[in-house]
Amino acid sequence: MSAPDLRSALVAWAHCAEPADPAVARLCRRWGPVEALDRLTSGSSGLPHGPALQARLAASDAAVPGTAADDRARAAGARIVTRTDREWPGQLADLGDRAPFALWVAGAADLRLLALRSVAIVGARACSAYGQEVARDWAAALAELQWCVLSGGAFGIDAAAHRGALAAGGTTVCVLAGGVDVAYPRAHEALLARIADEGLVASESPLGEPVRRQRFLSRNRLIAALTRATVVVEAAERSGTIATARAAHAMNRPVLAVPGPVHSPASAGCHRMIQDREAVLARCPADVVAALDLAQAGALLPTVAVAPSRRDALCEAERRVLDAMPTRGSIGPGALVAAAALPAASVWAALAILEDGGWVKPDAGGWRLARLPGQR
Amino acid sequence: MSAPDLRSALVAWAHCAEPADPAVARLCRRWGPVEALDRLTSGSSGLPHGPALQARLAASDAAVPGTAADDRARAAGARIVTRTDREWPGQLADLGDRAPFALWVAGAADLRLLALRSVAIVGARACSAYGQEVARDWAAALAELQWCVLSGGAFGIDAAAHRGALAAGGTTVCVLAGGVDVAYPRAHEALLARIADEGLVASESPLGEPVRRQRFLSRNRLIAALTRATVVVEAAERSGTIATARAAHAMNRPVLAVPGPVHSPASAGCHRMIQDREAVLARCPADVVAALDLAQAGALLPTVAVAPSRRDALCEAERRVLDAMPTRGSIGPGALVAAAALPAASVWAALAILEDGGWVKPDAGGWRLARLPGQR
Repeated sequence: MSAPDLRSALVAWAHCAEPADPAVARLCRRWGPVEALDRLTSGSSGLPHGPALQARLAASDAAVPGTAADDRARAAGARIVTRTDREWPGQLADLGDRAPFALWVAGAADLRLLALRSVAIVGARACSAYGQEVARDWAAALAELQWCVLSGGAFGIDAAAHRGALAAGGTTVCVLAGGVDVAYPRAHEALLARIADEGLVASESPLGEPVRRQRFLSRNRLIAALTRATVVVEAAERSGTIATARAAHAMNRPVLAVPGPVHSPASAGCHRMIQDREAVLARCPADVVAALDLAQAGALLPTVAVAPSRRDALCEAERRVLDAMPTRGSIGPGALVAAAALPAASVWAALAILEDGGWVKPDAGGWRLARLPGQR
Repeated sequence: MSAPDLRSALVAWAHCAEPADPAVARLCRRWGPVEALDRLTSGSSGLPHGPALQARLAASDAAVPGTAADDRARAAGARIVTRTDREWPGQLADLGDRAPFALWVAGAADLRLLALRSVAIVGARACSAYGQEVARDWAAALAELQWCVLSGGAFGIDAAAHRGALAAGGTTVCVLAGGVDVAYPRAHEALLARIADEGLVASESPLGEPVRRQRFLSRNRLIAALTRATVVVEAAERSGTIATARAAHAMNRPVLAVPGPVHSPASAGCHRMIQDREAVLARCPADVVAALDLAQAGALLPTVAVAPSRRDALCEAERRVLDAMPTRGSIGPGALVAAAALPAASVWAALAILEDGGWVKPDAGGWRLARLPGQR
């Protein structure tokens, strides 16, 4: 295959790599997604599972350069969104190396705009009638306050939250573990269709991807990352819901848990999280709004992570292109590819990032430095 | 009336002063209870409500020096305990100026020993069936672990806690707001009799004292002070139960609250306290035991209050007697009363405290300093 641009590379990785694969993330951090993909397809990625990823990629329409994957998504009533697209929710950057390469999105709304004002309402599939009532009522109350209610589309608390938001005439987003064209659970086919009609259905799994256990777990980090706060209505002691809450907690997003009868196993996880200060007790939707307002105001935004210097944030391919730039004057495309000693597509992808970041700017002769590489 | 000894003075104050009367506490802190009482009866207390207290005292058998009050308590199947008695629970000192002068106690058990290993289980009168079940079950579980369950004998949570402890064959203590011979509520006459049979009924109100609203509120501080930890099973947002929890919190005793359905008004106070970190969420009796173990180990004992120097802890009468002691040799009773310029009974009461604290010791000629007043 010929070398793709950055967007095609991201879509290709989304087709072949498991979500949050740490080895793939390392490779892409080092070389950038374009050059890393080139190394994968040329067999020089160094990944032990490189051949398996190659085979998966070859079997997908993403191996065809261009818009085959986009065309197929469009045919399924969906679209692919990557970080090169305006619709990409910037807060996914909080996932760091665990950010998805791409999201498949079905629905008319704009994912980035909804995510800016969304709250996760999650909980157990094996929930109580009490839990369903709380999820439905609180989702409706938050939807009425123009908060987008995001959940996972599962039986129990998730479905009650989606339905509560819809009943209030609000917007709701469902993040699936499988492809957006795979209705799961099957019994929620009509619910998912309605969510896509009035809000969005999204997934990092390619079209047709069946649901697997591992995908449920990795999906939970997206629910946490796409929202401003997570409300756990009911959760057993060890559960995927707790994993979602932990992911939100790790990103310094507020986690709220609803108390319930002390004997109820469906509330045990909520009580444990409150006890261990992994969640604060929520008594009413207003408590959630108060936490969201704080989060919006930045009071609860990450304080631990130090912003990297701009140059540190560049991948190796981008740094190599940057270092190949002359300190004075401009450089033409051919000379730059030769100086960077990278495939042309990797250089173009790197230039797009460097231009976006204010490092280089195009001129009549090609590109020139906009500021010195030593500057931050 | 002739000047009483310390114990008689404490009993007299218990008969005439409202619990935790700050003006009376100030007077007694300044002069010691004996001299303060002398000032009350001689009309020189400076208390605006001095005449009213005098009248109440005159109407009581505590105005008669000697054992009239004790005799009447004994006739009612009770006894009076003051800080001069071995049965006095030392932890009441955590109340500072709000400590009671005396307690009337009915029952065969030893209040001091029970208080050393007791836990308060308190809550709303207007409780739910859920709350009653939790109170009964947790009281039984704690009683089986040899914890004495202390509560206030009221309808609802209190009664369920007492009954749970009794059903488990455990010991329970009821602290009443009125006299120990006044069954309140009336419907609990048999329950209170059984508690006195198998545990203790106690009160700082004199015999025959009817129940008044103010006495309920002041009673709550005793429940907090007499126990190692307080468990709130159900409580409305503003309630006497919350006052008990606050008093326990102020003395750095663990406060635990049981969660319940988020819509239940009977759980609203518990949820609010957990949210505001005035209580920790308790999921089971083992959580209570863990908090009690920590408290016993001293991990949760007061860290803010600085222990006063020993001399600072003395009242003015005691300091005056101490300052009247010769630095070398001993002093006889007559010379000491003259040097201290205090009534003889005040001097004897002060000497008992000073001897107990290791300041003075009796010898053949009277008393001598055991260490210099400048020493701590």
